[in-house]
Amino acid sequence: MEQEKKAWEEKPKPLIKETTDAIVRITKTTICGTDLHIMKGDLPEVADGRIIGHEGVGIVEEVGSSVSGFNKGDHVIISCVTSCGKCEYCKKGMYSHCTDGGWILGYMIDGTQAEYVRIPHADNSLYHIPAGADEEALVMLSDILPTGFECGVLNGQVKPGDVIAIIGAGPVGMAALLTAQFFTPAEIIAIDTDDNRLAVAKTFGATHTINSSDGKAVEKVMEFTNNRGVDVAIEAVGLAVTFEMCEAIIGAGGHIANIGVHGKSVTLHLETLWSKNITITTRLVDTVTTPMLFKTVQSKKIEPRKLITHHFNLDQIIEAYDTFGNAAHEKALKVILENNTETRKRQ
Amino acid sequence: MEQEKKAWEEKPKPLIKETTDAIVRITKTTICGTDLHIMKGDLPEVADGRIIGHEGVGIVEEVGSSVSGFNKGDHVIISCVTSCGKCEYCKKGMYSHCTDGGWILGYMIDGTQAEYVRIPHADNSLYHIPAGADEEALVMLSDILPTGFECGVLNGQVKPGDVIAIIGAGPVGMAALLTAQFFTPAEIIAIDTDDNRLAVAKTFGATHTINSSDGKAVEKVMEFTNNRGVDVAIEAVGLAVTFEMCEAIIGAGGHIANIGVHGKSVTLHLETLWSKNITITTRLVDTVTTPMLFKTVQSKKIEPRKLITHHFNLDQIIEAYDTFGNAAHEKALKVILENNTETRKRQ
Amino acid sequence: MEQEKKAWEEKPKPLIKETTDAIVRITKTTICGTDLHIMKGDLPEVADGRIIGHEGVGIVEEVGSSVSGFNKGDHVIISCVTSCGKCEYCKKGMYSHCTDGGWILGYMIDGTQAEYVRIPHADNSLYHIPAGADEEALVMLSDILPTGFECGVLNGQVKPGDVIAIIGAGPVGMAALLTAQFFTPAEIIAIDTDDNRLAVAKTFGATHTINSSDGKAVEKVMEFTNNRGVDVAIEAVGLAVTFEMCEAIIGAGGHIANIGVHGKSVTLHLETLWSKNITITTRLVDTVTTPMLFKTVQSKKIEPRKLITHHFNLDQIIEAYDTFGNAAHEKALKVILENNTETRKRQ
Amino acid sequence: MEQEKKAWEEKPKPLIKETTDAIVRITKTTICGTDLHIMKGDLPEVADGRIIGHEGVGIVEEVGSSVSGFNKGDHVIISCVTSCGKCEYCKKGMYSHCTDGGWILGYMIDGTQAEYVRIPHADNSLYHIPAGADEEALVMLSDILPTGFECGVLNGQVKPGDVIAIIGAGPVGMAALLTAQFFTPAEIIAIDTDDNRLAVAKTFGATHTINSSDGKAVEKVMEFTNNRGVDVAIEAVGLAVTFEMCEAIIGAGGHIANIGVHGKSVTLHLETLWSKNITITTRLVDTVTTPMLFKTVQSKKIEPRKLITHHFNLDQIIEAYDTFGNAAHEKALKVILENNTETRKRQ
Repeated sequence: MEQEKKAWEEKPKPLIKETTDAIVRITKTTICGTDLHIMKGDLPEVADGRIIGHEGVGIVEEVGSSVSGFNKGDHVIISCVTSCGKCEYCKKGMYSHCTDGGWILGYMIDGTQAEYVRIPHADNSLYHIPAGADEEALVMLSDILPTGFECGVLNGQVKPGDVIAIIGAGPVGMAALLTAQFFTPAEIIAIDTDDNRLAVAKTFGATHTINSSDGKAVEKVMEFTNNRGVDVAIEAVGLAVTFEMCEAIIGAGGHIANIGVHGKSVTLHLETLWSKNITITTRLVDTVTTPMLFKTVQSKKIEPRKLITHHFNLDQIIEAYDTFGNAAHEKALKVILENNTETRKRQ
Repeated sequence: MEQEKKAWEEKPKPLIKETTDAIVRITKTTICGTDLHIMKGDLPEVADGRIIGHEGVGIVEEVGSSVSGFNKGDHVIISCVTSCGKCEYCKKGMYSHCTDGGWILGYMIDGTQAEYVRIPHADNSLYHIPAGADEEALVMLSDILPTGFECGVLNGQVKPGDVIAIIGAGPVGMAALLTAQFFTPAEIIAIDTDDNRLAVAKTFGATHTINSSDGKAVEKVMEFTNNRGVDVAIEAVGLAVTFEMCEAIIGAGGHIANIGVHGKSVTLHLETLWSKNITITTRLVDTVTTPMLFKTVQSKKIEPRKLITHHFNLDQIIEAYDTFGNAAHEKALKVILENNTETRKRQ
Repeated sequence: MEQEKKAWEEKPKPLIKETTDAIVRITKTTICGTDLHIMKGDLPEVADGRIIGHEGVGIVEEVGSSVSGFNKGDHVIISCVTSCGKCEYCKKGMYSHCTDGGWILGYMIDGTQAEYVRIPHADNSLYHIPAGADEEALVMLSDILPTGFECGVLNGQVKPGDVIAIIGAGPVGMAALLTAQFFTPAEIIAIDTDDNRLAVAKTFGATHTINSSDGKAVEKVMEFTNNRGVDVAIEAVGLAVTFEMCEAIIGAGGHIANIGVHGKSVTLHLETLWSKNITITTRLVDTVTTPMLFKTVQSKKIEPRKLITHHFNLDQIIEAYDTFGNAAHEKALKVILENNTETRKRQ
Repeated sequence: MEQEKKAWEEKPKPLIKETTDAIVRITKTTICGTDLHIMKGDLPEVADGRIIGHEGVGIVEEVGSSVSGFNKGDHVIISCVTSCGKCEYCKKGMYSHCTDGGWILGYMIDGTQAEYVRIPHADNSLYHIPAGADEEALVMLSDILPTGFECGVLNGQVKPGDVIAIIGAGPVGMAALLTAQFFTPAEIIAIDTDDNRLAVAKTFGATHTINSSDGKAVEKVMEFTNNRGVDVAIEAVGLAVTFEMCEAIIGAGGHIANIGVHGKSVTLHLETLWSKNITITTRLVDTVTTPMLFKTVQSKKIEPRKLITHHFNLDQIIEAYDTFGNAAHEKALKVILENNTETRKRQ
């Protein structure tokens, strides 16, 4: 049974392996939908006993000999993507495909749902938190905000005056919703099957919401846009049905920006789309916009704290997973796990 | 039987209908793969008796009262796309979606495979040919060169040093091949099932060719690129199998640019592509680059004449269709139909 | 004496000259800083007796035979730039350099500070106003909002998280200030010599203001940015001293976007700037973003009404000029001139 | 006297200082115009006894403990710009402004005109040379090709069909000339005061040449372009007169790309340029395109060897400087200095 795979265990404190590593004491971390997939066994490549989690803020405990940008005691944001800063992909800003990194944290190497974590290529994978910042809010910069922004908003090329649709009002859809407003679209249509999430989407800036449970979402979007379709459709679910909804509502010249993690192929209706001058993009978050997003947070242009709905202590992690795993019912977006203990814990 | 739909008939000379129209006496025209589709009945929306053809050069015979850029006697290139220059789409350079134009010539209105043709919105849909130009070569600017360039090369974002693959070495693939070289890719892999076309592709600038008949094209491309895949994959066929070949050979961060006219949906492998940071584009040619392409032809940076393999008189059009319809066997790319007669003819 | 050049006179109602013209009955117009320059004689190419004014909204009175997009009775925004939609520049979206248009209204041909105005190339130079819109606010779309947005914000490439400076808090600087917020810069520094205007700038979204009267503005900006300089400097005055201030405060990799109308050359400090990776842009507004801006106004993302400080009847135009000519003292930004009369008036 | 500053002296072999350093044994180096400026004392910040030179290829002799991409014995291209790969500027691809690098080689630290050189941040500042490559030609990738390409061609946004002018046919102008052809401009006008260089420019791809000695270059360019001006003007000299020539010949909507190192300010004619929609760029080469350029060299799209006119042994460096310092008379572009000795030499 998958559920039994989940455990909060004693583990030895991680050690510096490479001169470019840092050890960070986690102060706050969170759970991602991807963690649920790992728990369910959807990613069988994850080794047994792996500490998962790829988000968090903390305090640098120790740095390798060639780390130049961070020192013991520095408060840091941990990026979900590890970047060597040297390879061909890193040089192009495609950190997600770093040949000695990418998304490895809490996946191929031990992650952040623990008291300590080893961060490879620390100089390029950590970000400084200045004194006085709202550290809890900055946990949202580890993954969810850059994911919504890079894969959804930037790839979708949201422009002032656009009509955009966001399919999926879970945490990542909400991150796209918040960051899409950086570019002042005229209308933001949030589509989901959960009325509570749609209500929250409205408070986050959606101008219209559609509950797609009745199978009439496409019809409603086309009516709303006078049959022109939307300028940008952001897929934030990861299912064929939601991707194909994007295909059905996209207007001529529009952009479909996929964020969702897809386990299966989808049908691409080239028989209608071939002549519609559309662009479809996929992306594993590069976290290349973390510095930009940090500036928008510090200048209060966005309030990432809005995404946080629940708080737990790190040793209540099983309970936190239960809450997050039952997100719709619990009205959960992101849950914060706080490390308040002096004692080391293992997951 | 479809074949019998084809006829070369007497038709009345077209008349000015709108003040923005021009009547052009065709001097040279050609046949497009799309014309074959119409002949076969694949586009049932084409009215019976329609004169087809959307390419050609000619001499202005008469202009409507509000045409300001052209006069009787001017030599002109006819764009396959009609553009009003006023609507929202035209203002964005998306002439293909002009609300009073787009691709209508030889489709929704009578076209160029005739002695005379009525061109709506003449000021925005014709281009001047200066004295001394190679008019026959300029027939390639009506459709095929902008199609290969806009849908394939520009949408594919070909860059210096790139490794690109062009799937399909028919006329439009060849146009992409010729115009891709404007941006100096390092390697151009041409893929087709016809050895003769691949041999021609080599003379047109392909650095490598692959005959995909043996089902090993993907394997060969991956071997050639050390398993990285290509930077740009241009689909110039219009079949699911060739589009899916593009999906299989595209490298992380790459661009798939669809040119092909697809009659059926394809399978999009998001289960592997979701994290590959790729971009897929579709486009009906806008002919927005015709002025740019004209400059490259005039300065001899490209020789469109290379695409012309056969010549016929306009009244040999049935024979020309037979040749073009049997292109692989006839080693045909583009066939030129010349209007040498004084007598009016109808198709 | 220049002042005496100004007069409000009876003039014959303009007539359709070309089939592409429209005659518009002005309902609301305004005065631009450029009009003051014309009045002062700074633009000697302006013919004697010319009706000036290039902004306004109105109702279509009559259209030429080839105007297809507008009919008598339509409510319209008049663009300050006339665009034929056909020439090489219009096709590139550079309407300002239209070979049969550009900025001609109230300059080379009679303008909008009158009861009626003839608009050449009406289809491309007018924009529809839907029923129920705030027409007065839309006067700001004729010139000032696209000018601030295109020349300042778009050319300056304002990005989320940027630190930007706007030099000059007159109407056009304010338009840049309002539209810069479409892209969510972190900090907007407004610089002017007038404390009242700076106070207004704060209410319009400036996060910092600097009164440059003491000659210490550069020093203050550099201190504020920890000697890095700003990401974008927008010049909205038109003097050497303000342009050179932009050169002094621009950070490495930054953009200087000139909006100001300059009568004299400036000193470009290439001895320091050659290695700073900066970009300097100039632009005469193209009004190519009018449709985009219209959408942002309709969706209430921006309130152009904020720019309107005074109201006059059209026959109080002399008084209106006095107020606008004395803008700092009168705390004037834009003044609205309303045409309430049935009687024709001449300027 | 400046000349006496130049000396070829014994110096100790450099040592690894940081874990990210490499020591490279120079096999081939060259002289840059900037080296002449240093010799003349134009850059007084250069310390006495400094080994100059910032270009070259060589063989890795030793690497610091945290260098991961290079090993002893690797053949490498040395970039003129040192990049840490970690700082804010490096992450944006602006290596020239690296906070722990930038252009420091042969300027703030000892350079390449020696038998051995210490290269800081080796992983990001060296590039692998595969077996069989033309190493001499690759010396051109250290500085001159990326400089011409990035500062001139990319910043100038050269497009297919453009008319471009390159002012200055010295080595860097020639590098711009060669790399501009990656984007297939229609016409390339080379302007210089030396007929020999103009003759060479023709063989390198210039379609027109103008000797500007008679003061009529602007007139000739305007005549050639039917008074429209050029699309792109590339300044490759570094004088006010040549920059102002660019201002005089630039067409509406055009780009002026400065490459030249300017010691003095220039006059920017905003009184005419404010309304011409032009873009002016400056840039210190970032060498961010070195991997791209390397691919174009390896695929023989460009032959950098063309830029090499003279060869010397490294111990003939004084003679080499004399030749290069007298470039016009000696018909010199780039001179190669070969390190054939076993004995260590000092400069």
